[in-house]
Amino acid sequence: MDVRAHIQAHRDEFVATLSQWLAIPSISADPARHGDVRRSAEWLAEHLRKTGFPTVEIWETPGLPAVFAEWPAADPDAPAVVVYGHHDVQPVDPLDAWDTDPFTPTVRGDQLIGRGASDDKGQILFHTLGLRANLAVSGADAPPVTIKLLVEGEEESGSPHFADLLTRHRDRLACDVVVISDTTMWGADTPSMCVGMRGLTDCQIDVYGPRTDLHSGSFGGAAPNPARALAALLAGLHDADGRVAIPGFYDEVVEASPAERASIAALPFDEAAWLANAASDAAVGEAGYSILERVWLRPTAEINGMWSGYTGEGGKTIVPRSAHAKLSFRLVPDQEPALIQERVRRYVHDHLPPGVRAEVRFHGPGVRPCASDLDSAAVRAAREAMGRAFGTEVHYTREGGSGPEADLADILGAPLVFVAVGLNSDRIHAPNEKVEIPLLLKGAETVAYLWDSYATALRG
Amino acid sequence: MDVRAHIQAHRDEFVATLSQWLAIPSISADPARHGDVRRSAEWLAEHLRKTGFPTVEIWETPGLPAVFAEWPAADPDAPAVVVYGHHDVQPVDPLDAWDTDPFTPTVRGDQLIGRGASDDKGQILFHTLGLRANLAVSGADAPPVTIKLLVEGEEESGSPHFADLLTRHRDRLACDVVVISDTTMWGADTPSMCVGMRGLTDCQIDVYGPRTDLHSGSFGGAAPNPARALAALLAGLHDADGRVAIPGFYDEVVEASPAERASIAALPFDEAAWLANAASDAAVGEAGYSILERVWLRPTAEINGMWSGYTGEGGKTIVPRSAHAKLSFRLVPDQEPALIQERVRRYVHDHLPPGVRAEVRFHGPGVRPCASDLDSAAVRAAREAMGRAFGTEVHYTREGGSGPEADLADILGAPLVFVAVGLNSDRIHAPNEKVEIPLLLKGAETVAYLWDSYATALRG
Repeated sequence: MDVRAHIQAHRDEFVATLSQWLAIPSISADPARHGDVRRSAEWLAEHLRKTGFPTVEIWETPGLPAVFAEWPAADPDAPAVVVYGHHDVQPVDPLDAWDTDPFTPTVRGDQLIGRGASDDKGQILFHTLGLRANLAVSGADAPPVTIKLLVEGEEESGSPHFADLLTRHRDRLACDVVVISDTTMWGADTPSMCVGMRGLTDCQIDVYGPRTDLHSGSFGGAAPNPARALAALLAGLHDADGRVAIPGFYDEVVEASPAERASIAALPFDEAAWLANAASDAAVGEAGYSILERVWLRPTAEINGMWSGYTGEGGKTIVPRSAHAKLSFRLVPDQEPALIQERVRRYVHDHLPPGVRAEVRFHGPGVRPCASDLDSAAVRAAREAMGRAFGTEVHYTREGGSGPEADLADILGAPLVFVAVGLNSDRIHAPNEKVEIPLLLKGAETVAYLWDSYATALRG
Repeated sequence: MDVRAHIQAHRDEFVATLSQWLAIPSISADPARHGDVRRSAEWLAEHLRKTGFPTVEIWETPGLPAVFAEWPAADPDAPAVVVYGHHDVQPVDPLDAWDTDPFTPTVRGDQLIGRGASDDKGQILFHTLGLRANLAVSGADAPPVTIKLLVEGEEESGSPHFADLLTRHRDRLACDVVVISDTTMWGADTPSMCVGMRGLTDCQIDVYGPRTDLHSGSFGGAAPNPARALAALLAGLHDADGRVAIPGFYDEVVEASPAERASIAALPFDEAAWLANAASDAAVGEAGYSILERVWLRPTAEINGMWSGYTGEGGKTIVPRSAHAKLSFRLVPDQEPALIQERVRRYVHDHLPPGVRAEVRFHGPGVRPCASDLDSAAVRAAREAMGRAFGTEVHYTREGGSGPEADLADILGAPLVFVAVGLNSDRIHAPNEKVEIPLLLKGAETVAYLWDSYATALRG
């Protein structure tokens, strides 16, 4: 039996096992769900033991737990691979926009629907299927490379403790390459490998005006309105060209090379399809860049949410006492989250009108941007393995999203390789998240081949 | 026994009766409270019957009911007075900012605390106390002028059916003067009469972008963000001088006369005290006008509330699918709400970036601004009655707030006179609304004198 046949034979079992895990609402952003994040870690640990990993541990952090599992190669000189993913998921509101319960996984044709199906539980689980396929075909008791699986529980909350976790366990995580499975491909029929991700830092801005809500007739026109101050702050985040107008925001940005921009321009980009995926009527953004460049190569400032004053039925004629917004900033090499945080704070405090004050609270230290070396053996072997699984050429892309990848590369001192099979149409972070089951099986096939390739390609 | 002694003797009974009424949560803006608005009307009707009004009726509207009561003078040639107020109240959120339950009226020293204590139930109820005092002193069976009390139930929702109600009952409401008891005085020790009120129109703006929330990594930078579009719309409502920047907004504004501005400048205005009342650290507003002028003589655009995207704990890195705001516009003579509504709609639709659409929904037809004639017999007599009750000179002021007063003047063809004893520090429309009980008693005393004055001053 070959790798592909083994994987196909275990498809139903794989979907059933993944569905068990997806039923656990491991929302790291919601304190009420932190018990479920722990349950998710425990479920994964048990699954990894059943898969055959001789070492499985739950690694505590000051926040939510990660899972570590190691399966050493028989050859002590074999290369070591760290596989990274996360077991926490995004919040699910607006709940009424879901067609099915987000934590009652539902199969519809080739799709599995549920929060976390694509981001990221499905993409972690294809690794255990792929590893079992590799072992089934080789007949060996151990993989051809040492596999170290590291699955964190705070990725959707900005991985506030991940760098510290890596530092503390640096020795046990020693490796020759880090394989990351938390990104997307160009399309179901156009497999691709990500070679870079944006960083992220996000905050809440609280603007305070009068110490109580005021009657807008008795005071309106002379009392400071914090909602108006916040609207001006938010409107001032961008200039007329769509560039972020925070002073210094672009100071450390490394412009993409003409060669990289040319390779992006060569992709079979279909604006109508992109708009359909974006559920939008028009694309917008920074002047002088294509849509893909705006999402992959350029940093952003985005309003994720805001609220102030009266939001119920009918009207209430007040000057509200406070106004609030949640902002996120996507970063590109070599923007540093700490520097951006400082500039955002300064922007807010330099643009407050009289009578209002503001607090800017960042959610953790943020996530640095990262990129991988297209000419490395690690990237080339991964591209070949993926090409064998999919039976077609594999493209290079980037991801607009963010993860703790820069920390992995920096702290572990190893190159990054992205092997993942999500799609932009998977509705991650939105209602009705789904994953394409056949693509998860291709992911499993890819890593089953890749471990054999890495056993020779990465040997010192 | 004189008027004042009669009123003092009935103080406890008055407070107990008002407290009964304040316990009814007659919030007209909340559909869940519409049954309570009806209970409030029925309570008032019963109270007016007990007071002695021979005619008491509940007047239905397509919305919430008004109460009408008539007590004819014995002399068929006596003048007729319409007294206007409202029995509906503002919403109470944020509920956790109240020190006492808003519908459990609480006496603290000279204050009665509860939603509606000042706006407007307390100010309606001083009329029945004043009328009983007038009759007790005169010994007559009927008041010296015909009293027609009209108390509506939709004032805090913009009085959408009030003009129609007035038109339908125009004959029964025929009168020589309309006395309005729904405003405030300069201060507890500085009685004043309002001689003008701002108009009002308010709306909700709904801005829609992508048809679903999007991952801000996968799409941010190229997908339209409706919160950003809304922030720009809201920030653009004012220019750098604090003027409303909606094209045409000031076209019909009648500038106040130099004499009126001089009279306002002569008031004993204490900016520190104003700031304390406004619970604010600084005054803001339109360049070239004083604080009082900004609130009394100038129109405004105010953000009353807004919301978009994720507003829960922690962060959620989305491009939200929609963004919403509630706005109110205070108007001055001769701005017409219908014209302003049209210009607001045009402003919104002319300032939408690609990929977003917007709906502007006004809450009813709005309220026209109004003013009274300082040289009329009706205003002069009222000023004298109030001066007698308070034992000091009565100033002229305006109100920044709004009511359906312009409709009363226009439809009934009678001059407006404002007799009211609220204070700007009463926290109407805010948590911990209160009223000063001694001022309500002065209000009762004022009208007890005023009906005698009007019996001669307004006689054809």
